[in-house]
Amino acid sequence: MRLRNKPWATDFIASHPNVVIPNPEEHIGKWQAVFGNDNPLHIEVGTGKGQFVTGMALQNPDINYIGIELYDSVMVCALEKAIAANTPANLRLLKVNGADLLTYFEKGDVAQVYLNFSDPWPKVRHAKRRLTHEGFLKLYESILVDEGEVHFKTDNRGLFEYSLMSISAYGMLLKDVSLDLHVNMPVDNVMTEYEERFSAKGQPIYRLEAKFQTKA
Amino acid sequence: MRLRNKPWATDFIASHPNVVIPNPEEHIGKWQAVFGNDNPLHIEVGTGKGQFVTGMALQNPDINYIGIELYDSVMVCALEKAIAANTPANLRLLKVNGADLLTYFEKGDVAQVYLNFSDPWPKVRHAKRRLTHEGFLKLYESILVDEGEVHFKTDNRGLFEYSLMSISAYGMLLKDVSLDLHVNMPVDNVMTEYEERFSAKGQPIYRLEAKFQTKA
Repeated sequence: MRLRNKPWATDFIASHPNVVIPNPEEHIGKWQAVFGNDNPLHIEVGTGKGQFVTGMALQNPDINYIGIELYDSVMVCALEKAIAANTPANLRLLKVNGADLLTYFEKGDVAQVYLNFSDPWPKVRHAKRRLTHEGFLKLYESILVDEGEVHFKTDNRGLFEYSLMSISAYGMLLKDVSLDLHVNMPVDNVMTEYEERFSAKGQPIYRLEAKFQTKA
Repeated sequence: MRLRNKPWATDFIASHPNVVIPNPEEHIGKWQAVFGNDNPLHIEVGTGKGQFVTGMALQNPDINYIGIELYDSVMVCALEKAIAANTPANLRLLKVNGADLLTYFEKGDVAQVYLNFSDPWPKVRHAKRRLTHEGFLKLYESILVDEGEVHFKTDNRGLFEYSLMSISAYGMLLKDVSLDLHVNMPVDNVMTEYEERFSAKGQPIYRLEAKFQTKA
């Protein structure tokens, strides 16, 4: 995603601590207190402009959502979307690096991880940066409940092929796979901004659900 | 595939025992004797008109190939292709039902299984007939060498999605996955008759290689 310089973004984010949580490391292991309930927590790593995580929060009031995004200039769009949706009580945003998940979450904190249209990092030497690389799968497993799930959508064929193999090699179970999501669009599919634009071109959207399996 | 009635087919097949092996159950556990060497044996379940298995036999003289096809009227085309290719010494055909593999092969007889453009059996109540159903995977595992592989190509999206999940649930490793094979066509890809016709339409061919894993 192209990043624009938005000098006002940092102040705008800081002035909304009810949505973009300051000092998130203080809530490790006790996220339920933040939401004031014990509903399951789903996180989106790489939330971008926030349409997905906001839409999911509105669609599923009994699930708590945290959208994770590193860049101020993008996060500010997600914040604006949350405000436009009357700041749903079950939605928060974290302005942190997805590679640092263990700083903010511990085992069992998270019930589900969403990855949507993640950067494909097509060069082999950048494979470790792909959000479905073994290193990231290990992170997700470390913060998810037992048999927790990763749900992943992308239009990038190479990244999806890679992800199927990476997930298989990790020993995860492929629970659901769609190689053209919009042909039989699930009624509860919440589209990202990118997905809306991209799907109009008629190229396939790939999607999978994968589950970590308890080691014998 | 549409079956035509070919009353002469049975006689034609019977008159070529050097290609279409009579009494194949007699060779269980000793297929190397049929080929007169100890090269690895690859089989194609559902050989159809035989272009793939004949092409593979010509391309890889150090591998033995057996094409398995149930229907006389289709098998006769595969036989004609083998004859037209000067009946390669490393190629045989079996006119048997793929569901009866255990009658003809025992553990370790086969080094690799090929499935190409298998019948998708789209109705859920026919799922057991799909050649990547758990029941068939179990058959393949029972005749393959340890860590033997299944290589599968199809244009059918539903069957490929199903197969990814079935293979994952079986605990096999997805070694290689291509969601549009002809975009970066492997130089050694041997096309089936169907693949040639289909690929001209520009729709994707899906392909995977999956490996059985030794149980811990």
